[in-house]
Amino acid sequence: MLHWAYLVAITAEAMSAALIAGRRSMDWFGVCVIACITALGGGTVRDVLLGHHPLAWIEHPSYLIVTICAALATGLLAPFMKRLRHVFLTLDALGLVVFTVIGCNIAVSVGVPFFIVVVIGVITGTFGGVLRDVLCGQVPLLFQKELYASISLLTGLLYLGSQDLGVPHEAAMVGAMSIGFALRMLAIRYHWDMPKFVYKDEWE
Amino acid sequence: MLHWAYLVAITAEAMSAALIAGRRSMDWFGVCVIACITALGGGTVRDVLLGHHPLAWIEHPSYLIVTICAALATGLLAPFMKRLRHVFLTLDALGLVVFTVIGCNIAVSVGVPFFIVVVIGVITGTFGGVLRDVLCGQVPLLFQKELYASISLLTGLLYLGSQDLGVPHEAAMVGAMSIGFALRMLAIRYHWDMPKFVYKDEWE
Amino acid sequence: MLHWAYLVAITAEAMSAALIAGRRSMDWFGVCVIACITALGGGTVRDVLLGHHPLAWIEHPSYLIVTICAALATGLLAPFMKRLRHVFLTLDALGLVVFTVIGCNIAVSVGVPFFIVVVIGVITGTFGGVLRDVLCGQVPLLFQKELYASISLLTGLLYLGSQDLGVPHEAAMVGAMSIGFALRMLAIRYHWDMPKFVYKDEWE
Repeated sequence: MLHWAYLVAITAEAMSAALIAGRRSMDWFGVCVIACITALGGGTVRDVLLGHHPLAWIEHPSYLIVTICAALATGLLAPFMKRLRHVFLTLDALGLVVFTVIGCNIAVSVGVPFFIVVVIGVITGTFGGVLRDVLCGQVPLLFQKELYASISLLTGLLYLGSQDLGVPHEAAMVGAMSIGFALRMLAIRYHWDMPKFVYKDEWE
Repeated sequence: MLHWAYLVAITAEAMSAALIAGRRSMDWFGVCVIACITALGGGTVRDVLLGHHPLAWIEHPSYLIVTICAALATGLLAPFMKRLRHVFLTLDALGLVVFTVIGCNIAVSVGVPFFIVVVIGVITGTFGGVLRDVLCGQVPLLFQKELYASISLLTGLLYLGSQDLGVPHEAAMVGAMSIGFALRMLAIRYHWDMPKFVYKDEWE
Repeated sequence: MLHWAYLVAITAEAMSAALIAGRRSMDWFGVCVIACITALGGGTVRDVLLGHHPLAWIEHPSYLIVTICAALATGLLAPFMKRLRHVFLTLDALGLVVFTVIGCNIAVSVGVPFFIVVVIGVITGTFGGVLRDVLCGQVPLLFQKELYASISLLTGLLYLGSQDLGVPHEAAMVGAMSIGFALRMLAIRYHWDMPKFVYKDEWE
């Protein structure tokens, strides 16, 4: 089940990244690169930090092929995208919690401290978008808008914490992902934001 | 032969990167860092993704020294650079195909699937320039202009495909590099571009 | 002693990074990420390039916790920050030489050529700031201002060179760090800059 949710998630991430690349008038190669980096970049950063080789997309080239096909298909679907906006935001929320849980699983399998497992889960869930924004020449949205990373953090904490308290593995996974997903949809619906740290003094 | 072509290629990449850094008025340290990252960054990303240690420039510090010397020499040569523009574009095209073929060779030696070998070749050929553009604060040129990455992709496909069809290794290498190089020169001469994906709807 | 200096250094780096993030009105999550990447990013790049696993902060999660606490504390201290500017610049200079020497030590322990040891020391000392600037959407300051990287380079050379000449390890370390620190303070005081390479011809 997690595997299928993962494939849906990388497809959704690739398509919304392709639209962002399209708004910068990138050529088709650039669109595919941005889509791949957005969909697979979080997991790649995780594996590089953990020294966990081979990387997921090197072992399973199908992930890369799915992402590239999704990016190219976005060209055909672009005129309908606006209407599909809610579908996309929903799939993106699914991606966030799926990536986070997969990241936690891999960090657990490598054997790192509890706190680091959660950090690795958040990196897996969010760094694809950070890399996309850096390559598109903008300050990562993640750092400025919406309860995105916080929900990834909460999902990871719930997933690991409930297992620690004796909840069975599958139940912990489904529970954490459901709560994270629901909160993300509520955050979008009601425009919940993290408080910001605004510092205006001159420094340097 | 590939070794000498590689040294020529990193020298050319380092010098053109130094000019780009110079146009941003970087200090000499910044110029050298940008030159090294442009010339050696593609191979570094490749080796980190493959978990292939030690990195080329850590095993052979001479590559780093060549790059730094090339960057510093650019300061002396800067007044003549405009006249040398065509020499540089030619050496840069050489670099693109040489880096791609070397990247494919290393990916083959690590033992990854066919499709990933080509992807690693393209990353080796093009990511130095991507890192340079990110560090210089601009959207990577690669994603917006010219048949650059596509030629890297074609070179990799020809190199591996012809070997699969029974062409001897050296012939496949020289053939793929010659065709890639020729196409790159034609693309520059006639301003061939990839089609772009332009998406103007408001999203988010 | 080096360990305590390291903790002071990552605290100082995290706090000044948090102020930079605050000037971009990032939310608290973004502030913490920027602080962690600035304080721990140089060492992370070093370990990834060397294939040296586990990373420092994965083995010692306390480093990450110190950094996050420092970033959050900055919010409370922000109104006093301007007055503390000199304290910060001093701690930052300490961080530069401490990071450099630690980087050299790890490179020596991995067993790389002399020249690469110095390069790894400089990367450890300076790349946290480079990553911070890239994520904040600006051309790295490092490449444009102040004798920062050069002092890291000099510290590394003094540290390794004096050991080669028979100076005992501790003396070499304290000596190199003291000279580097003193020069950095002088560079700030008298606005010493590296010469720049300014290139204004049109190219491309």
